[in-house]
Amino acid sequence: MNKGFMVVFDGSNGAGKTTVINEVEKYISSKGLDVVLTREPGGTKIGEKIRHIILDPSTPEMCDMTELMLFGAGRSQHIQEKIKPALQAGKIVISDRFDAATFSFQHYARGIDLASIMKINDLALAGFQPDMNIILDLDPVEGLKRVKSRGEGLDRLEDEKLDFLIKARNGYLTQAKAQPERFVIIDASQSKTAVLSDVIKVIDALIVKQG
Amino acid sequence: MNKGFMVVFDGSNGAGKTTVINEVEKYISSKGLDVVLTREPGGTKIGEKIRHIILDPSTPEMCDMTELMLFGAGRSQHIQEKIKPALQAGKIVISDRFDAATFSFQHYARGIDLASIMKINDLALAGFQPDMNIILDLDPVEGLKRVKSRGEGLDRLEDEKLDFLIKARNGYLTQAKAQPERFVIIDASQSKTAVLSDVIKVIDALIVKQG
Repeated sequence: MNKGFMVVFDGSNGAGKTTVINEVEKYISSKGLDVVLTREPGGTKIGEKIRHIILDPSTPEMCDMTELMLFGAGRSQHIQEKIKPALQAGKIVISDRFDAATFSFQHYARGIDLASIMKINDLALAGFQPDMNIILDLDPVEGLKRVKSRGEGLDRLEDEKLDFLIKARNGYLTQAKAQPERFVIIDASQSKTAVLSDVIKVIDALIVKQG
Repeated sequence: MNKGFMVVFDGSNGAGKTTVINEVEKYISSKGLDVVLTREPGGTKIGEKIRHIILDPSTPEMCDMTELMLFGAGRSQHIQEKIKPALQAGKIVISDRFDAATFSFQHYARGIDLASIMKINDLALAGFQPDMNIILDLDPVEGLKRVKSRGEGLDRLEDEKLDFLIKARNGYLTQAKAQPERFVIIDASQSKTAVLSDVIKVIDALIVKQG
């Protein structure tokens, strides 16, 4: 049995995260390996309820600290209930966002102090960390254009000013620079095929390394 | 205009908290003072949604840390959105439970380490604290007898073993002993009239002090 590992996908809205994740799932399954798709906020029954509160556009009055702790609450449940058991069973866990998003959105974009975020995130992680973060990097102007062309409504967090999204993107790039061993940046302005090819190279390397 | 103050009521299930709080509200209103009734978990639109997740009996898989952060998230919102504005407007805030309950239930009863609870609670409080905690103290055996005689269903947290409730009660008594200036213990095994009389004395003293 292979030792499990966890890969997190992040990216500006419109960067093609959902498509890439679905293709990666098919790819891993095609190699006969067990894959678990999950997401944050969410991932568990309790986490999905928390997600609903976080993303509800009808409560713009939500405080920064409240949002942060809701993410932390969901993350703790996610790790204990779903991620760790899957990894222990040798599965590959693919998560649509995880803690890097909290740093990008809550610290770099919204300006909550790093110390508070780290306290809560450390309590939620309890020593755990994903094996790899793949950032599908795209200029937010281009990303919003793509989202709008799909005709989708925006949730509370997506419905932020462009400035917010630019800061969040820079947050991802800053984190990636500080921890190159845990972050890979992929240019999401490329064709879907090229993006997917770059992603599969990272996944293959992890399968070889952990296999 | 009087300066506002905040009183928190705690007590074993069945100790008569709801009845006492309603009587206290009438009493304060009868003196021509503005009173805001609130509760934890809950108190705001976001907080009530969080309460629903915390107390849902269908998710017994909830991790300790998740529960703790959900309480913290709700508390932060409660203070910023409702409590502080009410106090600044000179109102008297009466809350059915607040942070003392977190220490009693999560630390003393459930055994989550004090350092983790303090980190989260400190972030939620951000320097705020209630003026007075009134503990309606009752032997949990007697309390459960009263609850059952009312024929009510138990929520996820009430549906705990007796041992848990005894530890929680002792947690309240320990906190009260450590901070006598912020805690008053009232014997809830007395008649309703006697309990209410004891409570009104505390409220009157606060009105005089803050008036």
